[in-house]
Amino acid sequence: MTVSPLPLLLIDPMVRNALTEDLGRAGDITTDAIVPADLSARLVLNARQAGVVAGLDCALLAFRLIDPRIEVRVLRPDGSALAPGDVIAEVSGPARGLLTAERVALNFLGHLSGIASATAAITAAIRPHKARVTCTRKTMPGLRALQKYAVRVGGGANHRFGLDDAVLIKDNHIAVAGGIRLAVLRARAAVGHLVKIELEVDSLAQLDEALALGVDAVLLDNMGPDLLRDAVRRVDGRMITEASGRINAETAPAMAATGVDLLSIGWLTHSATVLDIGLDAA
Amino acid sequence: MTVSPLPLLLIDPMVRNALTEDLGRAGDITTDAIVPADLSARLVLNARQAGVVAGLDCALLAFRLIDPRIEVRVLRPDGSALAPGDVIAEVSGPARGLLTAERVALNFLGHLSGIASATAAITAAIRPHKARVTCTRKTMPGLRALQKYAVRVGGGANHRFGLDDAVLIKDNHIAVAGGIRLAVLRARAAVGHLVKIELEVDSLAQLDEALALGVDAVLLDNMGPDLLRDAVRRVDGRMITEASGRINAETAPAMAATGVDLLSIGWLTHSATVLDIGLDAA
Amino acid sequence: MTVSPLPLLLIDPMVRNALTEDLGRAGDITTDAIVPADLSARLVLNARQAGVVAGLDCALLAFRLIDPRIEVRVLRPDGSALAPGDVIAEVSGPARGLLTAERVALNFLGHLSGIASATAAITAAIRPHKARVTCTRKTMPGLRALQKYAVRVGGGANHRFGLDDAVLIKDNHIAVAGGIRLAVLRARAAVGHLVKIELEVDSLAQLDEALALGVDAVLLDNMGPDLLRDAVRRVDGRMITEASGRINAETAPAMAATGVDLLSIGWLTHSATVLDIGLDAA
Amino acid sequence: MTVSPLPLLLIDPMVRNALTEDLGRAGDITTDAIVPADLSARLVLNARQAGVVAGLDCALLAFRLIDPRIEVRVLRPDGSALAPGDVIAEVSGPARGLLTAERVALNFLGHLSGIASATAAITAAIRPHKARVTCTRKTMPGLRALQKYAVRVGGGANHRFGLDDAVLIKDNHIAVAGGIRLAVLRARAAVGHLVKIELEVDSLAQLDEALALGVDAVLLDNMGPDLLRDAVRRVDGRMITEASGRINAETAPAMAATGVDLLSIGWLTHSATVLDIGLDAA
Amino acid sequence: MTVSPLPLLLIDPMVRNALTEDLGRAGDITTDAIVPADLSARLVLNARQAGVVAGLDCALLAFRLIDPRIEVRVLRPDGSALAPGDVIAEVSGPARGLLTAERVALNFLGHLSGIASATAAITAAIRPHKARVTCTRKTMPGLRALQKYAVRVGGGANHRFGLDDAVLIKDNHIAVAGGIRLAVLRARAAVGHLVKIELEVDSLAQLDEALALGVDAVLLDNMGPDLLRDAVRRVDGRMITEASGRINAETAPAMAATGVDLLSIGWLTHSATVLDIGLDAA
Amino acid sequence: MTVSPLPLLLIDPMVRNALTEDLGRAGDITTDAIVPADLSARLVLNARQAGVVAGLDCALLAFRLIDPRIEVRVLRPDGSALAPGDVIAEVSGPARGLLTAERVALNFLGHLSGIASATAAITAAIRPHKARVTCTRKTMPGLRALQKYAVRVGGGANHRFGLDDAVLIKDNHIAVAGGIRLAVLRARAAVGHLVKIELEVDSLAQLDEALALGVDAVLLDNMGPDLLRDAVRRVDGRMITEASGRINAETAPAMAATGVDLLSIGWLTHSATVLDIGLDAA
Repeated sequence: MTVSPLPLLLIDPMVRNALTEDLGRAGDITTDAIVPADLSARLVLNARQAGVVAGLDCALLAFRLIDPRIEVRVLRPDGSALAPGDVIAEVSGPARGLLTAERVALNFLGHLSGIASATAAITAAIRPHKARVTCTRKTMPGLRALQKYAVRVGGGANHRFGLDDAVLIKDNHIAVAGGIRLAVLRARAAVGHLVKIELEVDSLAQLDEALALGVDAVLLDNMGPDLLRDAVRRVDGRMITEASGRINAETAPAMAATGVDLLSIGWLTHSATVLDIGLDAA
Repeated sequence: MTVSPLPLLLIDPMVRNALTEDLGRAGDITTDAIVPADLSARLVLNARQAGVVAGLDCALLAFRLIDPRIEVRVLRPDGSALAPGDVIAEVSGPARGLLTAERVALNFLGHLSGIASATAAITAAIRPHKARVTCTRKTMPGLRALQKYAVRVGGGANHRFGLDDAVLIKDNHIAVAGGIRLAVLRARAAVGHLVKIELEVDSLAQLDEALALGVDAVLLDNMGPDLLRDAVRRVDGRMITEASGRINAETAPAMAATGVDLLSIGWLTHSATVLDIGLDAA
Repeated sequence: MTVSPLPLLLIDPMVRNALTEDLGRAGDITTDAIVPADLSARLVLNARQAGVVAGLDCALLAFRLIDPRIEVRVLRPDGSALAPGDVIAEVSGPARGLLTAERVALNFLGHLSGIASATAAITAAIRPHKARVTCTRKTMPGLRALQKYAVRVGGGANHRFGLDDAVLIKDNHIAVAGGIRLAVLRARAAVGHLVKIELEVDSLAQLDEALALGVDAVLLDNMGPDLLRDAVRRVDGRMITEASGRINAETAPAMAATGVDLLSIGWLTHSATVLDIGLDAA
Repeated sequence: MTVSPLPLLLIDPMVRNALTEDLGRAGDITTDAIVPADLSARLVLNARQAGVVAGLDCALLAFRLIDPRIEVRVLRPDGSALAPGDVIAEVSGPARGLLTAERVALNFLGHLSGIASATAAITAAIRPHKARVTCTRKTMPGLRALQKYAVRVGGGANHRFGLDDAVLIKDNHIAVAGGIRLAVLRARAAVGHLVKIELEVDSLAQLDEALALGVDAVLLDNMGPDLLRDAVRRVDGRMITEASGRINAETAPAMAATGVDLLSIGWLTHSATVLDIGLDAA
Repeated sequence: MTVSPLPLLLIDPMVRNALTEDLGRAGDITTDAIVPADLSARLVLNARQAGVVAGLDCALLAFRLIDPRIEVRVLRPDGSALAPGDVIAEVSGPARGLLTAERVALNFLGHLSGIASATAAITAAIRPHKARVTCTRKTMPGLRALQKYAVRVGGGANHRFGLDDAVLIKDNHIAVAGGIRLAVLRARAAVGHLVKIELEVDSLAQLDEALALGVDAVLLDNMGPDLLRDAVRRVDGRMITEASGRINAETAPAMAATGVDLLSIGWLTHSATVLDIGLDAA
Repeated sequence: MTVSPLPLLLIDPMVRNALTEDLGRAGDITTDAIVPADLSARLVLNARQAGVVAGLDCALLAFRLIDPRIEVRVLRPDGSALAPGDVIAEVSGPARGLLTAERVALNFLGHLSGIASATAAITAAIRPHKARVTCTRKTMPGLRALQKYAVRVGGGANHRFGLDDAVLIKDNHIAVAGGIRLAVLRARAAVGHLVKIELEVDSLAQLDEALALGVDAVLLDNMGPDLLRDAVRRVDGRMITEASGRINAETAPAMAATGVDLLSIGWLTHSATVLDIGLDAA
């Protein structure tokens, strides 16, 4: 399934912001001094590493915002698998604009492709289990919508986008409320009918409470594979099950093998490694 | 030497933006439903991993912007070395505000401390050589000023902040200009007297041209330790020397031993790993 | 249950925007010319009509943003029932600031209290049925978060806040997809595990499809009380049921008597009548 | 006379703001999941109720901002009288964009057409008297320029746009100044030569003071038709006369028959009812 | 008469913008490197030239936005006459903040005091005639509200603040309309009752048309003193008279002696000379 | 050498801001009332005074932002010498848009051309000396990037763009640090390798310290030609030399004759006189 692109209206201010940050008050003084205004060039966005493309819209918008005369041709759209040397897109037009926009374009593309690639890798590692990788709210300030999009591109599923689109009851909330039951009841009374409620549970006893209350999903936190398997069996499809707690490429298969629905992985967005992509001569 | 904090005026819009992104249109629906409005709490920002603190101003501002009644007490300011379990700061006040601001505060603090810690680690690894670690423009869109600050906190030095505050002549520019000499002369004619000029060179032949032209700094790209040592000797202090190209914790000491002035490391900012910091009961 | 206030961070830019719109480029030229700078006054926000208060935070913030020396005292916070003549809050301080902020303060307070009052009225009319009033996305551009808050204050429940926090499959989507089944399956495959899916149905046949697919909620559109009762019975608690289509104070009780869970009413936000509140001498 | 459209520069940020509010962080998840990216459609904005169109520029801009490939054809521009079933405009292009922009487009169009229609209705009711309907500063926060434009489209006249473009001396100002005379003199001394001065008067005695001072306009507040007729006669064209105070469709003709120049009506903007317009298959 | 200060809400974003422009991405690197964080200082804003103060609110806000701990004491508020050496205000607190904010504070204060001083000088030169100096829309982009305020502080009167708060019919409009009469009638029909109409006339024949139409004011453009005197006599108080066209300190007295109401002077705002003010040791 | 234009991305928000400031809430009510919507015109930007063009991009963008149908033809681009009567550019399209954008377009063009012209004049006056004119941070709030660009267009060189792109150590810093040596050492330790350090010196003794420390540039403040010549000789090319202190067209040649590298002139940007340019019939 192809992932739908983010609306231009949402990415436009982020790309403008990044370009403004880089241009400062005087613009690209190196390129302006050295490169003739009437020189044209054709360059390619080039994978130097295997992975999955994400963020091409942002990268290409960076070029077009610097100079609307720059033309783009997409060869491997977001979601494409990349081998080293693969050309992702071609950009052609005034050489000044190409060089000025290069770094911002690559910063978006490398970071988001890094997230998509990591998501795809761990998704592949847990096949053929039904579990899907999901992200968290541990994101880079200001970049959440883009990062979550990159997770989708990599084949992952999105968790909450913010504090307002679903209820996630954690240990602190339970402690304050005086128990799971009161916490869930208060949440259910307060929120609208299209808001789901997920509950973090640390033990099978808590899980039983969750089952009794009928929440939509449980976050099974820091459980090893054995305990997790017990928990998933006990739920038996009556709620969505999500496992969290330092899940990585090595531990994921065993976790996925428990039958859990989702593996929640914070480092996809808070510690993503860039995918190496360059802007090279065509 | 203590690193000066960033002006509040610069970090305020970034923290507001991150909070707005997380609050969405309805705010923290979980906490608002479950936690009584008049409940107070005292929590601590707690290191779960060794490292160096950076970004505490952002984290504490997140709490205060959510509720100005929250009081903060700093125990380990930016630049402090952390051992696991060390308390960085205390936050106390309305429990709702503490829980609502938690994730945004930790997102800033964990990411920036991660950069500072990585910078500090590699800085320690190249002691007693004179070389300093420096960053690049390979930063997260919108977060450059903060990331570069974190590099300073970790003991690193900053490279250009954008396209406008120094000239960096790369291979593309040289090719377009028809040679190093023309590129440098054009740049020198175009920019003000307080702008430095750095030139990327790939060979000793190019280095000789740079020396003849008297640029301020040379970026010695992708040179191994032996070639780099030759280059540094040839410069003999007449220009600043900077090495770049996939430098990591293992290769850095040998690179630093060449006598080069700076080691330029992109992954400090484009692929930083979060430092694990939590918000715990006091 | 008390409704939690919106975060200051969310209402602050809206109130600044409204004040800027009213101040223009020269500010309150009438008051500045006539009222001495050192004159103080004490005024009250006064109900001239029965209803329910909502939006007091916005109104009081308007005064404080114009002059931080203005002090406020809340007598009837958001959610309070008002009789004509009831004092909602006192504002005291520099007379200029009080007069300058008056209109913007009242514009927020009157509009939001109007929404809360209408919601409360129709909520009262359908007691003792279990149905709750809910709002729609038919809101004033830029004011949605505030309007939905006012609905909560009046005892109503919130529907989606935007296009991104829940799936609502309407007739157009069904037509395009080639049927309910494909539409629901595509939606389920695309969205995260914390996103609910609601389906608009116009007939019992469609309702049966919805039941078979197990969506979270059904929007029963334009059904009269008899058909609606049949539909609700058929659902028998297995999904949330919501009725929509020109529901007003007169028709609501009969609709609620069908046992439906929610009555969706667009005019609460798109055609709300102001509640008459004035700023009078204390 | 045709009313001039608002500059695109002024409406563009309002429409972007409304779309951003609706798209949230993930965009239209329903449409993106269900509607194929390459599906095109042609839809019409369709009147379901008689009235007057206003706000078409905003509505069409909403579509074009979501997808610039959407093409629009205007059949009944702002100011056109509408009968139920009349087509206002056609929009054609990518089906996803049409569905995503629909609600925001209709929110602008329905609200502004509602204001224009109400203004037109009351304007028709007071024909053949010379009085014109005028609006107030009792507007929706952030939407004043649009609402005042809709009043013009409906045949009404605009009062002040803010606190800075004319002087309006009310009872509070008079009380503080120690009388009408001092208030007017202070205002006249303070403001520029292109700023008019209007004075609110409650009695014929106050009116005589206003005549003696030669203000530009008087606001005759809360006067019944008889007293108003006396007041208008006494003014005898020497000042502009404006009546205010709970004027509605029933009372307006008698008020207009007094010969007063303007009827000021707050509810046109603070309590407007939406005009029912839909987006239907062409 | 004291001129009322501009609302803080209006100047705050302008001062933030100016500070952000100066701080760039790294802040005041000189001061941060050299001045200890705990050093305090007391400095004074000191007139080095005679003139009139304007813009002190902006200047002091610059200091407080950089460091809220900075305290200010105003000795000569806006509108005060200054002799060389006069202290305008004292600022005390952290030395870093004082030095960092200095240039932005002085840029506002020097520029606005320059405008106020020039306005005051020419106002003094035309005493005892009744004519007042007025400004135009020839202002610095983004600074109009501040510049017009400075004109008021210097004793001048304000012309239009923008294209929307009064009608000014110029030769182009007359030509397009096919004559003065049609232009005035169209304008009168289009605008609200609180909007004045001024007409630019170049000859006594045009002036007679203006008198017959009863506009509010005439702009007598490029008339020498003799023709201007004739024009003013012919108007005889029935309209406001304004003279424009390269009026300066030398020609102003003769122009004012004609009895004209206003002298319109563009260079007050488009070519103002800074007033020399420094930040010195207390 | 042609000066590179500023990126559209940087000037776009400034031009929008200026237009919004002028349009207010209702737009150009004069033109909208009088000029038919379908009338086209062709007008020219016309020099009424000799000088140098700068800011044409801003002026033309103002027209295009008001109405994208307006077409522009540039005859004399930025940097062109102008004689009175020279046509700079042609603008043609809807007459309304041309008149509405006129003032904002001219405000940018006249101001920036004024700066370029003054810079060019003083640059011509100091030929054939090698000294170049340079600007300062004494700029109009919010317009610095544009003003510095205009200085470049006029043949001048740019000093620092802000507090963050170079170190400038002034007397205050030296006093606080306890001497030049400590000040320079602290700065050198704190800033990156691409940041230059300039030191303000008032005497030959201080100059000797600067030479010993090897800073990049010295600002020779308030030195007469004789002392300045001694200073320049003593430096003998080892540092960049810059003279400052009330330099004007009359004193500049003697200052330049000393061999100094740069003449720093604040009034170019803080007290620039507009260049008279009009919008006339083609």
